[in-house]
Parts: sequence; C-alpha cells; structure tokens
Amino acid sequence: MSELKNDRFLRALLGQDVDYTPVWMMRQAGRYLPEYRATRTRAGSFLDLCKNPELACEVTLQPLERYELDAAILFSDILTIPDAMGLGLYFVEGEGPRFRKTVRSEQDIADLPRLNADSDLAYVMQAVRTIRQALGGRVPLIGFSGSPWTLACYMVQGGSSRDFRQIKTLLYRSPELMHALLGKLSEAVTDYLNAQIRAGAQAVQIFDTWGGVLADGAYQDYSLAYMQKIIAGLIKEHEGRKIPVILFTKGGGGWLELMAGVGADALGLDWTVHLGQARARVGERCALQGNMDPSVLYADAPVIRAEVARLLAQYGPGNGHVFNLGHGIEQHVDPAAPRIFIDAVHELSASYHS
Amino acid sequence: MSELKNDRFLRALLGQDVDYTPVWMMRQAGRYLPEYRATRTRAGSFLDLCKNPELACEVTLQPLERYELDAAILFSDILTIPDAMGLGLYFVEGEGPRFRKTVRSEQDIADLPRLNADSDLAYVMQAVRTIRQALGGRVPLIGFSGSPWTLACYMVQGGSSRDFRQIKTLLYRSPELMHALLGKLSEAVTDYLNAQIRAGAQAVQIFDTWGGVLADGAYQDYSLAYMQKIIAGLIKEHEGRKIPVILFTKGGGGWLELMAGVGADALGLDWTVHLGQARARVGERCALQGNMDPSVLYADAPVIRAEVARLLAQYGPGNGHVFNLGHGIEQHVDPAAPRIFIDAVHELSASYHS
Repeated sequence: MSELKNDRFLRALLGQDVDYTPVWMMRQAGRYLPEYRATRTRAGSFLDLCKNPELACEVTLQPLERYELDAAILFSDILTIPDAMGLGLYFVEGEGPRFRKTVRSEQDIADLPRLNADSDLAYVMQAVRTIRQALGGRVPLIGFSGSPWTLACYMVQGGSSRDFRQIKTLLYRSPELMHALLGKLSEAVTDYLNAQIRAGAQAVQIFDTWGGVLADGAYQDYSLAYMQKIIAGLIKEHEGRKIPVILFTKGGGGWLELMAGVGADALGLDWTVHLGQARARVGERCALQGNMDPSVLYADAPVIRAEVARLLAQYGPGNGHVFNLGHGIEQHVDPAAPRIFIDAVHELSASYHS
Repeated sequence: MSELKNDRFLRALLGQDVDYTPVWMMRQAGRYLPEYRATRTRAGSFLDLCKNPELACEVTLQPLERYELDAAILFSDILTIPDAMGLGLYFVEGEGPRFRKTVRSEQDIADLPRLNADSDLAYVMQAVRTIRQALGGRVPLIGFSGSPWTLACYMVQGGSSRDFRQIKTLLYRSPELMHALLGKLSEAVTDYLNAQIRAGAQAVQIFDTWGGVLADGAYQDYSLAYMQKIIAGLIKEHEGRKIPVILFTKGGGGWLELMAGVGADALGLDWTVHLGQARARVGERCALQGNMDPSVLYADAPVIRAEVARLLAQYGPGNGHVFNLGHGIEQHVDPAAPRIFIDAVHELSASYHS
C-alpha cells in the first residue's frame, strides 16, 4: 500500500498533533454533486451504485477532486447487513429505505442467517480495496456500519418511522427478543467492520442514527452496550497503524460522558451540542468530530466562514478535533458552498494548533 | 368561579408541598380514546372539532372521566395563530398539518395581520370558558400555544418537514427577516396566552416542538429569546392565583440551564433526559415536568409500573415534579394502559412527599 500523504484525520482522532483541523463531510459523495448524479444515472438505482465497486469508487473520489478534504468515506449504505440477511432492501424516492420483509417475531429473529462479511458482502470489500488503490495514499479511507439499534429499527419497522412503534413495542414487551436481535446484529457488525479494516479501511465510524429516539436508560441497554461490544471486538491495528473508531449517536448529546467510556477514539456530535462544553465533559478520553448544522451551507460565504470561526473558537486550542457537519450534507446545497466551508476550516484552524 | 378542589398540579409547578406527584399526559384527549373518535366523527374534521367550543369541551373532559388526572388541557391545535392570520390550515390524514399559503418573503411577513386573540380566536376563548365551567373546580385547566419558532417552522415550510430547509435557509441567509417574523409571532403568542388566562386558563405551556432542530447558538437567538420575551409579557396572576408557565423544547435537554433562566416556572423534559441529572442542573430555579417515553404504554402493567418507579426514584424526594410523558400519548395505545400509569404515579409517589 502507498504511504499515507495526509494523515491529519487519523492523528486528530487519536488526539495527536496536527498543523490544522482536518475536515470531511458525512455523505460527501452525494446528490448535491452533478458528477454524482451522472454516475448514479449510469449505475441505475442507488443500490446498484452501492453494489458496483468501480462506480462506488468513482463517487467516493468525486468530492476529493473538488475539495481539499482530509478523508474519504466508503460509498455505501448503512443497511447492507440486513439486505445481505435477505430482507430485500429497496428505496422509495423521497421516502428513504424500505425492506420487503420485517423482523418482529422470535422465529423471524431465529431465521436471520449468520453472515460472513467477506463473502456475503464481498461487493463492499471489493469497493474498499478499489478505493484504497485509487486513493494512492492521498487521504485515509473511512469504513462504516449502522449501529445494531439503528439496523434493528429499520428491520423491525420495515423502513423509516416517526414513532418507532413496532420496535419500541418489541423492546418494552419482549426485551429478551430485542436483546436476541441486537446480539445477532452486533456479531454481524463486528465481522463487517473487521472485514472492511482487513480490506483497507483506515478508520471506522458507527452510525447510531436512531439511538437518540431511545429513553435515557434504554439507550444505555439497547444501543450503547452493543456498540461497546462491537468496539471490543474490532481489530485494533492494521498495516502498522491504529484503526480509530468514531461513535456517532444523533441526538445523543446528553450521553457524551457515557459514550466516552465504551472504547471509541472519537465521538461524533450533532449541531445541538456546544463543542467547548462537549470537550469539557469528555476530557482527554475521546476526540470530537463535528458539528456544523449542514443547513449553514445554504448561507452566503461570510456566514459560513463566521460559523466555522465560531465553532473553532468553541473547541479552542489544541488537538482532538475533526471538523464535520452534524449530519449528512443535504442534496440541495450548491457545490460552491462546501469549498468555502472546507477552506475556512483549514485557514482559520491553523492558529489553534502550535 | 368554583373553588379548585385539586391544586396539586399548580402547587407542584411552583415547587410547593404536595402529598403526591401530580400527573397529566400531553395529548390526553386524543385518538386512543374511542369516545374521542366518536365525538370527532360527529364534529367532522379535526379542525371543526377544535373550532367547536362545546365539542372541544367534551373531548377535553373525556380523559378525566376515565383517569385520575391532576390537570385538564384545552383541546386545541398549536397552529391556531397562523390559521387566524389567514394561512389556511388543513390536515392530511397521516401526514400532519399543512398551510395553503407559506410565508417566505419580506412581503409575506409584512402582510401578516396583527391579531386580536379575543376576537380573531374567539372560539378558543369560548372553549376555555366552557371547559372551566364544566370542570367546576375539579382540576386546573392548562392553556397553551406553539412557540414562535415552532409556528414559524410550519408557516415557512408549509407543513411538517424533515430537513427544515426553507426555514433554515431563511434563518442563515436573511436573519433580519427571520427575526421580523419571530417578533410578530411573539406578540401574537403573548396576546393569545393572555387572552386564554383571562378566559380562565390556570397555567400555560409553550410547546417548542421544533426548537431541538436548531443548532446551539441558533436555539438561543431564534427560539429561546422569543419565549423569554413572551413570558415577560404574560399576566402573572389571575383570580388571585399565580399562573405558572411551562416551557417545553423537545430535544432541548442540552439547554436546560439556559431554559431555566428565562422566567418559566417549569421545564418540560423529553425522555432522553435523566430526571435526577436535570434536577441537579436546574436546581431550585424551575420545577420539572416529564418524562416517560409514551411507548412504555405499549408494555404490560409490571413494566409500566417499574418505569414509573424508576423515574420517581431518579427525581428523588421533594417538590417540584409534575409527572407526564415526554411527548404526546400515541393513538395506538390501549386505553387501559394510561390508568395503570396514572395510578402508579399516585401510589408510588406518596413516599417521596412528606
């Protein structure tokens, strides 16, 4: 593998010295880019694009051609695992993911196959290898998975939800079934992330998109505990480098102290959290990744720069910060805006690093 | 007006002694009750029901017939103000509220009429008077309004939203227009709540349903500041009693210290917040209202009772707690479940009060 030319992202996740704050954007390969839409059209459906390693590589690299990003992230979906388990993932335009089969009964859970990520999700591993090759050491590649709780939400509900009625009924009426499902998913996620690391992912992020819909107490038992289990089972080092783990629970700002204790190297923050307060709460235990509201990218350049300046000042001087958006970049953003954002992070952060 | 027979709710909001923890449920008059559905059918649409004081009174009292609730809440909608401003509120089954007209330009904002709640929202004041009469002092009546930010979200978006793109674009591109709109709405909300108090509301709650979609910093400037302004303009005392104000920002758990400083008597909590930690953060400045996950009502009786016991223990001994759900009761709840919940609060809380 080629030498890594820009390792600021990996260093920042581990709290090491950097000359400026590294930045990437969740969903940086996406519909706001015309070149993405063109590749997507060639691929067919969104899922066809995810399952085509060459095209997945192409879109992964597109934002790097435009912007001075400090990391690439594997182009894929968070629901590849349940899809590989046979639930039949598909997408309804404007309504998000759906499954043809739901998982609600003891039998449904027992019937879920045990996956081997290297073979059952070979297309993902092939994409990771292809992207690493194409990156040629330019920036590190991030692998990822949905959290067990987040995967379970989609599997039990059969798609997105407002009230999460089916899965919460399962949780509160049949906690033992809920734990059985989450246990199976934790094993699958651990295997999946380890396969990505072996294929070349240099950091991994666990997306706990729906952890924030859980009550305090339930979050600890049904989401955080399983993410802790996964982290404990991950490959710690590969190609002679530590593989940092980022934990991101959207809406989880109230639980940062707990999240800091489960072995992750960095915590993702949504934009409701004050960066300086989060840093004080978490201390030296974890780096922080975040957290500008992606809607700021609808603003004019001076407002974008001012927001970047405000957030850098909130975090303050020193290491352990990766700049990002608090959620995925939105499809209606003008592609000129991320450049203003990314360049502002680099330019304005230098003075915070010695 | 008749003497108030059960004032535990009002006393708890003011941090005064009570013999048990009072309890009510957001959206307690609602579709989970067959008698509500029957009245709703007689009324016609949801909005017809809101606008008919006799029938609004009927459904307000229905949950009190079934359960030992410690408060009644006016049956109405949070969007009565923009409807009275001429935006044309209507409801699409399963999709929430919509407006025929949106408010996005300087002209749109300038065109919004200044309301007189007593005349422009006379049906609400008539409902308050009718309900107070019918209650005969059994329990206090809560009035309410949406927060300016929450009303603005619906007015600018034209309905519910996932990404709040239109309003956030307005906020980040034209903050002066955003402030102009919020200023107008603050005046309308202040007048509206004062009219409800004069008509007989004995406590008021401000529902900041969408405050939690704002970034830290933006929440303070675009939601909290306007709620503070409203509270400063409210009638403090009526019929010889203090009128307590409850502030509820869903997803606002990170800002409790700030919310405690704007003059509200109590803060509503969603279920992601640990009650004991919230109490420690807020201190004596505010009472707390909340916060069981409404989905717990899908569970069996022992689980419901255990959750109530857990939350009472979190809050601990002493005054200043009103038990509630962290969000409105859901329509698929079995009407047997709220009785288990409410009776458990009363029974299990007595030992926490001297």
